[in-house]
Amino acid sequence: MRDLLGGKGAGVAEMTRAGLPVPPGFTITTEACNAYYKRGERFPPGMWEQVLTALQGVERKTGKGFGDPRNPLLVSVRSGAKFSMPGMMDTVLNLGLNAETLDGLAKLTGNERFAFDAYRRFIQLFSKIVLGVDGQLFEHALDQAKRQHRAATDADLSPAALGEVIDEYKAIVRKHARGEFPEDPIEQLRAAIGAVFSSWNNKRAVDYRNFNRIPHDLGTAVSVQTMVFGNMGDDSATGVAFTRDPNTGEKVLFGEYLPNAQGEDVVAGIRTPHPIADMAREMPRVYRQFDQIAKRLERHYRDIQDLEFTIERGLLYMLQTRSGKRTAAAAVKVAVDMVRERLITREEAVQRVEPAHIDQLLHRRIDPAAAIEVLATGLAASPGAAYGKAVFDADRAEEMAKAGEKVILVRIETNPDDVHGMIAAEGVLTSRGGRTSHAAVVARGMGKPCVAGAESVRVDLEKRQFTAGGRTIHEGEQFTIDGSTGNVIAGAVPMIDPEISGELEQLLRWADSIRRLEVWANGDYPHDARRAREFGAQGIGLCRTEHMFMEQDRLPIVQRMILAPTTAERRRALDELLPMQRGDFYGILKEMRGLPVVIRLIDPPLHEFLPSLEDLLVEVTRAQALGKPESEYAEQKRLLDAVRDLHEQNPMLGLRGCRLGLKFPEIIEMQVRAILEAAVQLKREKVDARPEIMIPLVGHIEELRRTRAYLETTAKQVLGAAGTRVSYRFGTMIELPRAALTAAQIAEDAEFFSFGTNDLTQTTFGFSRDDAEGKFLFQYVEDKVLPANPFETLDIPGVGRLMRAAVTEGRRTRPGLKIGICGEHGGDPASISFCEELGLEYVSCSPFRVPVARLAAAQARLAVSERDR
Amino acid sequence: MRDLLGGKGAGVAEMTRAGLPVPPGFTITTEACNAYYKRGERFPPGMWEQVLTALQGVERKTGKGFGDPRNPLLVSVRSGAKFSMPGMMDTVLNLGLNAETLDGLAKLTGNERFAFDAYRRFIQLFSKIVLGVDGQLFEHALDQAKRQHRAATDADLSPAALGEVIDEYKAIVRKHARGEFPEDPIEQLRAAIGAVFSSWNNKRAVDYRNFNRIPHDLGTAVSVQTMVFGNMGDDSATGVAFTRDPNTGEKVLFGEYLPNAQGEDVVAGIRTPHPIADMAREMPRVYRQFDQIAKRLERHYRDIQDLEFTIERGLLYMLQTRSGKRTAAAAVKVAVDMVRERLITREEAVQRVEPAHIDQLLHRRIDPAAAIEVLATGLAASPGAAYGKAVFDADRAEEMAKAGEKVILVRIETNPDDVHGMIAAEGVLTSRGGRTSHAAVVARGMGKPCVAGAESVRVDLEKRQFTAGGRTIHEGEQFTIDGSTGNVIAGAVPMIDPEISGELEQLLRWADSIRRLEVWANGDYPHDARRAREFGAQGIGLCRTEHMFMEQDRLPIVQRMILAPTTAERRRALDELLPMQRGDFYGILKEMRGLPVVIRLIDPPLHEFLPSLEDLLVEVTRAQALGKPESEYAEQKRLLDAVRDLHEQNPMLGLRGCRLGLKFPEIIEMQVRAILEAAVQLKREKVDARPEIMIPLVGHIEELRRTRAYLETTAKQVLGAAGTRVSYRFGTMIELPRAALTAAQIAEDAEFFSFGTNDLTQTTFGFSRDDAEGKFLFQYVEDKVLPANPFETLDIPGVGRLMRAAVTEGRRTRPGLKIGICGEHGGDPASISFCEELGLEYVSCSPFRVPVARLAAAQARLAVSERDR
Repeated sequence: MRDLLGGKGAGVAEMTRAGLPVPPGFTITTEACNAYYKRGERFPPGMWEQVLTALQGVERKTGKGFGDPRNPLLVSVRSGAKFSMPGMMDTVLNLGLNAETLDGLAKLTGNERFAFDAYRRFIQLFSKIVLGVDGQLFEHALDQAKRQHRAATDADLSPAALGEVIDEYKAIVRKHARGEFPEDPIEQLRAAIGAVFSSWNNKRAVDYRNFNRIPHDLGTAVSVQTMVFGNMGDDSATGVAFTRDPNTGEKVLFGEYLPNAQGEDVVAGIRTPHPIADMAREMPRVYRQFDQIAKRLERHYRDIQDLEFTIERGLLYMLQTRSGKRTAAAAVKVAVDMVRERLITREEAVQRVEPAHIDQLLHRRIDPAAAIEVLATGLAASPGAAYGKAVFDADRAEEMAKAGEKVILVRIETNPDDVHGMIAAEGVLTSRGGRTSHAAVVARGMGKPCVAGAESVRVDLEKRQFTAGGRTIHEGEQFTIDGSTGNVIAGAVPMIDPEISGELEQLLRWADSIRRLEVWANGDYPHDARRAREFGAQGIGLCRTEHMFMEQDRLPIVQRMILAPTTAERRRALDELLPMQRGDFYGILKEMRGLPVVIRLIDPPLHEFLPSLEDLLVEVTRAQALGKPESEYAEQKRLLDAVRDLHEQNPMLGLRGCRLGLKFPEIIEMQVRAILEAAVQLKREKVDARPEIMIPLVGHIEELRRTRAYLETTAKQVLGAAGTRVSYRFGTMIELPRAALTAAQIAEDAEFFSFGTNDLTQTTFGFSRDDAEGKFLFQYVEDKVLPANPFETLDIPGVGRLMRAAVTEGRRTRPGLKIGICGEHGGDPASISFCEELGLEYVSCSPFRVPVARLAAAQARLAVSERDR
Repeated sequence: MRDLLGGKGAGVAEMTRAGLPVPPGFTITTEACNAYYKRGERFPPGMWEQVLTALQGVERKTGKGFGDPRNPLLVSVRSGAKFSMPGMMDTVLNLGLNAETLDGLAKLTGNERFAFDAYRRFIQLFSKIVLGVDGQLFEHALDQAKRQHRAATDADLSPAALGEVIDEYKAIVRKHARGEFPEDPIEQLRAAIGAVFSSWNNKRAVDYRNFNRIPHDLGTAVSVQTMVFGNMGDDSATGVAFTRDPNTGEKVLFGEYLPNAQGEDVVAGIRTPHPIADMAREMPRVYRQFDQIAKRLERHYRDIQDLEFTIERGLLYMLQTRSGKRTAAAAVKVAVDMVRERLITREEAVQRVEPAHIDQLLHRRIDPAAAIEVLATGLAASPGAAYGKAVFDADRAEEMAKAGEKVILVRIETNPDDVHGMIAAEGVLTSRGGRTSHAAVVARGMGKPCVAGAESVRVDLEKRQFTAGGRTIHEGEQFTIDGSTGNVIAGAVPMIDPEISGELEQLLRWADSIRRLEVWANGDYPHDARRAREFGAQGIGLCRTEHMFMEQDRLPIVQRMILAPTTAERRRALDELLPMQRGDFYGILKEMRGLPVVIRLIDPPLHEFLPSLEDLLVEVTRAQALGKPESEYAEQKRLLDAVRDLHEQNPMLGLRGCRLGLKFPEIIEMQVRAILEAAVQLKREKVDARPEIMIPLVGHIEELRRTRAYLETTAKQVLGAAGTRVSYRFGTMIELPRAALTAAQIAEDAEFFSFGTNDLTQTTFGFSRDDAEGKFLFQYVEDKVLPANPFETLDIPGVGRLMRAAVTEGRRTRPGLKIGICGEHGGDPASISFCEELGLEYVSCSPFRVPVARLAAAQARLAVSERDR
């Protein structure tokens, strides 16, 4: 019932049903929250009456009375959404305290200091969350009291001192909330429930949902639960724990607890907590009970559980159980282990790992051979390494990242207001907090490296610098963090590419046995091909030949070719390029022996191979202004004229792709010659080369027909001269709306289709990616004008509709037509899922995304099977 | 049976059936021609046998024998396609002559000179057409003979001299065709038939068909017909005539004839022929017979007939009848007259006029008030006036036209090899030939002005100049021709816009009563609107607001608006623009009172309102190079930075249209305010203003929804403040593939759709029109990679498919959704026909095209009705 009760409420209800020790309480459903929003942030009719009835039930169970000075019932009011959003929404603790119940609590517990402290905490939290008073005012007042009373920690403040703090707090409320702090527990409860509902739509929660693609219309449940206290002395404690290590996936109880503390003290990272293992020594009986409960819950839910508990005077209370967030490595290990433990099936294991997270495992780590200067070591809070420029607040991080800088966000500790900076940063460094601190949890969720609680790092937010290992790093200086070791390292350090763990290998093999879609890779060089093969690619879906033209030793020849005044001169330059291209293709075809390699003929407009118009214009203008003799800048002038001649208003929609080939057939003739000569040579070496030749930017069947006819002649010439046969095919990109709309015709001449979804998205939307993203597209996504960036996730109603038409109609013409996708969407799990639905043969993505795509393809297959069942 | 027999063959067959005097003959069908091509230019099986059988039939009818020296049968072998292609394909006359039949012919006719001349002509024509020998070689030999024998014309050459010419001709053939001239008539016939078949695909025929959109797979028929001779003395003649004047449509026999001449002499314009009226005096009996036949044929075919005839020794033979080509004015007059004469229905009249030709009537003519210097007067061969630079050959004309120059092609006379130059030119001037000469016929067909046979114009092709009225015009100098008066005029002369004739008014009123599609006009200013109304527009379909921004007095304010660093400053500039825009809209809404005016909000990228990046870069670089103090070029530098900031790789796909409005809502807010304030003012003046507000470049419903919601607020404010109500609607352009693909959604918020087919064509094809046309698109059309320029005629399989989906799905969401088209296609007859088929409400085109569109819409309606019947 997670939909209705939220994860937290459902977990508590389930634990209660199972007879586990849970403080009595009740949950207000997400439905009520949605009704609350529909009514303009007012409670739906009847809800409040039901709350009061449920509250009476809790009073009965606990024998306590809400607002009863003699035996006061105190409750927590917590948010709880269907999908966990740790720390994003608000919680109020100790609700029900006022001047009268405070006395009752003090007497009942015989611990006046505890009662005053609870009241102090309640006022602080309630005022901040429900009344909207700036939390720093209270922190400041507390700090002053501590200084005044020479108290090192809160615990050192006497009840009297706490009483003064409480008076001061109330004065703050009076001043900043323009009214008295509410003494009536019923009024407190009503206001707190409203505030928790409202926290569903606070900025950080909305940001978090956007980042994690959680729908905004789910709403939050509100759990009202009897308070239990972990801060009632040394036989009390509070803690959080995972049933397995969420970083590594190892099957050990993992977590932290703090004696004599309330839950927020652990999460906030204010005091450094003890490892959970210490509990076995310090509270052996409770530890055994807890360990058993943890095992039972994991078996019940068949997944890692993230548990919150409190020990009140030696009695264990379970406050929460939920599916535990974990690193990619842990997710993989746990999924594989649980199959081996017969807890889950292989299909479930494959579905348990978020494909995007696999990406983490494939991120860089620091080259072990590199000499590094470790400045400090903190907690290895989220694995992976990253370097970037130091930046000390979230806004600045976002700003610099938008300007294209790589940054590392450095904070003393983070809180939910820092999330947008964490999204922007390469990684996070904090000087305080544990592995379950906000920074650690959020960074792991994002798959970003994080070093937390690096206490020897002295962060100076004012001066925008930090000091560690005797060095000072100022804002904008580069440094490195390694979230796998906790190291903070000077400078930008050489990194190496990751390997795939045994468990990941296993998981991907299971995925391979499930999926129908092949996974190919885009790669232009033999080393790309090698990596792609290592990662499991089953072919090269896009080998861009123009990158080869850009290499330094070739560019002058390419330029000579472009500037040639006659076809004969152009041919001479092409003759020089031929052996080079042949070598390129030889390398990649050899590396991919036995697998198809789709080679795309030259695509970009020719001016891309020449210097920029602006640079040339400045050079020539300057030379002219300075009255230099024309001979000194004649070359630049000639180039300028040529570039002007090739200049286009909208080069994306200009002379490129097959249009270029139809205008200068000698260029693509050379390329086809190079491809087939390389294949012939490999055949002689008994290597199975499988070139497929792809003609780009076809919009009309006649473009394809003529280009292909021309190139078939070349192919026959090459093979005739060699006296041998090599298998090859001609196909086309489907990257223009018109190509998709006339696919039935185009399939007459195309032996395969490959969706170029980058260009197809550009033309379908009329977005030039280069221009659109910075100028308005990111803003569109942020403002939710568009549900997602269509260059990252396929736009199904528009681009997808064209693809569907092309698949259906292309195959009607040519049954069995092989169709793949080679745009960047080929590595995006949501888009892969659509490709599975369309029945494509393969997706092609960057080599590093191949494992992600293998897993996503398997999940897509399982989803389709489930739907069809 | 035009399909099978071609126009010529069908006409001859029909006349024979009607008992008219036609020389016996037979026709080989177009089917045979197509089979000939399928078999690799070989006769299909059985065809030749049928030809021989038919030939025997002709021998029987004429009593002559093919190759019989005593009574030789001579035949013509003529091409004849379904659609007339005058002069484009080949014809051989006098076939059947050889040394033996020559003697027979001489004896039989008692006219040795005639026989020798016929043989001479036959060798010349056959050798050129069938054997491929350069015709100039024969001309040269003939000229030499004339000089040698001091003969002024061919007719002055004695039989002996002609005998020498014949020997010389045969020697030329021997040398250049590497073989003897064929003496066997059967061999001659076989070769001639093949040559005529082959002439279907000669370059000029292919060019002609491309220009006139005639399919290439129709093939030509071949008519073999007994020769009759117009050159057998003064009682013989040959001529061509129209049953009505093809220039004006007046109901008088119109044409020319030449006594003692063969047909080619008239068409080629070598001798200047006599007006047909002279025949009434010179050959009264034959004239009466001819006049009766002409009337009979016109009644039979219910259309102007273009007749060819020959008088052999006083006997009239009809050689051809076909529908006569006519000027636009004549077409209109004839159509209207024939309705009045009860020859045809109104619907037929409407179908008789080519909509594109209406355009001619609407073209410019010379301002009668202008002082002009007439250099010469020739024949008014094709109406309308034009000026341009003199150019003396077709290739150069094409070249200069491609470079954007307006040119007038000047030739002594034109022939089919000049067609591409005529296509490129504004008009044509020839110094020889009549109103049925090649130049005249082709120019009329193209709707271009032509002055023909201006004998006082001395054309020097070598020196590339012509002399007339004592002045010499060199290549590249501007001059003017008036094809309605025949005047050749010095310099470029002021022109005025045409009026609509009474007959045209009548025809268009009939069209209006037939058509279903409304015809609207695109116009940005009140004077556009006025003209549009005069031409019959029923609304303004596209009023582009950005043109108003470009006006000189506004541009500085617009630039200030764009460069404003804050929204407040931008608003200040917009406040200055508001009254100006309000004035613009006031004017156009008032002009169009009672009719809808669709006003499109700002569309182009903002950099279009700023100086060019290149210019600024040059200025700043120069100033810097010269070491000027920065203060002197600070303004340019600031502008340069701003332009750089706004610069886009592909502005067509960048920050424009509704994207601009979402980023700077204050701009479109000002526009909507201006529109509605103007409407309010008009309402107070009791003027019925009907503004419709169009949001451009919508790709996603959310763009439209937000823009509209924002603007509705403004609209309500304006109307609220005015305390009045004005009807207005919000709609959108459908100009991106995604808009068409998601039209079902977009129709939720759009109150009307208008297809922006220019942009829709750009994005569907991935063609930037600015870049594509010059760089490859014209070439694509020439090479038939594309069947037509998709910016001129809607691409139905691609763009049209998107339109069809948008219409169907948009109306499914919003039944009765008003849909129009405002791209340039709105004035193209073929595209209008598709719009009728789609069931759009209106087409909108430039004001001058409105009459064309009215007629085209009626024809489209009739075509749909006929199809549905």
